[in-house]
Amino acid sequence: MRKLGIFMNVTLNGLYADANSDMSWAHQSPDDTEWNEFTAANASGDGALLFGRVTYDMMANFWPTPMAQQMMPTVAEGMNKMPKYVVSRTLDKASWNNTTVIKGDLAVEIRKLKATPGPDLVTLGSGSIVAQLADANLLDSAQVVIHPIALGAGKALFGGIARKLQLKLTKSRTFKNGNVVLWYDPA
Amino acid sequence: MRKLGIFMNVTLNGLYADANSDMSWAHQSPDDTEWNEFTAANASGDGALLFGRVTYDMMANFWPTPMAQQMMPTVAEGMNKMPKYVVSRTLDKASWNNTTVIKGDLAVEIRKLKATPGPDLVTLGSGSIVAQLADANLLDSAQVVIHPIALGAGKALFGGIARKLQLKLTKSRTFKNGNVVLWYDPA
Repeated sequence: MRKLGIFMNVTLNGLYADANSDMSWAHQSPDDTEWNEFTAANASGDGALLFGRVTYDMMANFWPTPMAQQMMPTVAEGMNKMPKYVVSRTLDKASWNNTTVIKGDLAVEIRKLKATPGPDLVTLGSGSIVAQLADANLLDSAQVVIHPIALGAGKALFGGIARKLQLKLTKSRTFKNGNVVLWYDPA
Repeated sequence: MRKLGIFMNVTLNGLYADANSDMSWAHQSPDDTEWNEFTAANASGDGALLFGRVTYDMMANFWPTPMAQQMMPTVAEGMNKMPKYVVSRTLDKASWNNTTVIKGDLAVEIRKLKATPGPDLVTLGSGSIVAQLADANLLDSAQVVIHPIALGAGKALFGGIARKLQLKLTKSRTFKNGNVVLWYDPA
């Protein structure tokens, strides 16, 4: 069975995007060599990626560009190469390299996907998908980066989940730039 | 000048209370000796406390009771003894030992209070006061406990603040029960 984890950047008050869906604050961390190494290592793994449509579009319009290759060559190469899945009712085909479109009932399809052979899956961003996966009890781990910033309004991680999600902290790491990474398993 | 800090328990997704204003999850941490020592030490300090009306009522109806003294004798003694301030437009006098009512414009009154001699101030809970103090640039530090739990809806720490609040992480501490305490100064 493939495991499904999430990786999410949030503000100290739990938002992954501001009221206009902007997430640029998550990429404006002060320069920090260890942090850069951490994000690069994270993206060069052997996993597969799972996205909602909004996050997919954002990523698919950035990582294949020459700009991305110049800014973050290691991460860009990893992102473009890894197998990717995008959950969408409207998308027929996905143009980004090595991407499969998932249609139909989310919980059913993800259960099927987890049962196929292949690398473990990680969801980046994709807040509404993450909430649905949590409610369907399909998340095997969560890696959350808490940025040293608060916003007055926006989209909350796990916003709208129907039941309380109890987690178990397995690890934490603090970076000089003020980011704190927390790892959780289901409780 | 007295410093003003906040101490806040939040879910992993930044909520200090659920949609019904319930915060009981913040007091249901699995048993953890270090955590108990930490909260007891925190409450037995030499500071003064500042509350909004809702949090004040909750505290004033609990800490002076025999039940509180049996459950948490050290914390109860500290809470009952410390100087306390409650911000309220409607309250005329406060019955809890050593409590002063603050009326009038919040920012003006807190600036005055910080300029008087006395111990440093800490705000517990009091989410709407905390947001107003952040916008008025009156917070000197923030101590946030991230509990290993997520809720679908509720009241967000710093909810409604008018401008982005940039912070500086100064310290962090992880407990066996999964709570993570983060200390911040203004950036």
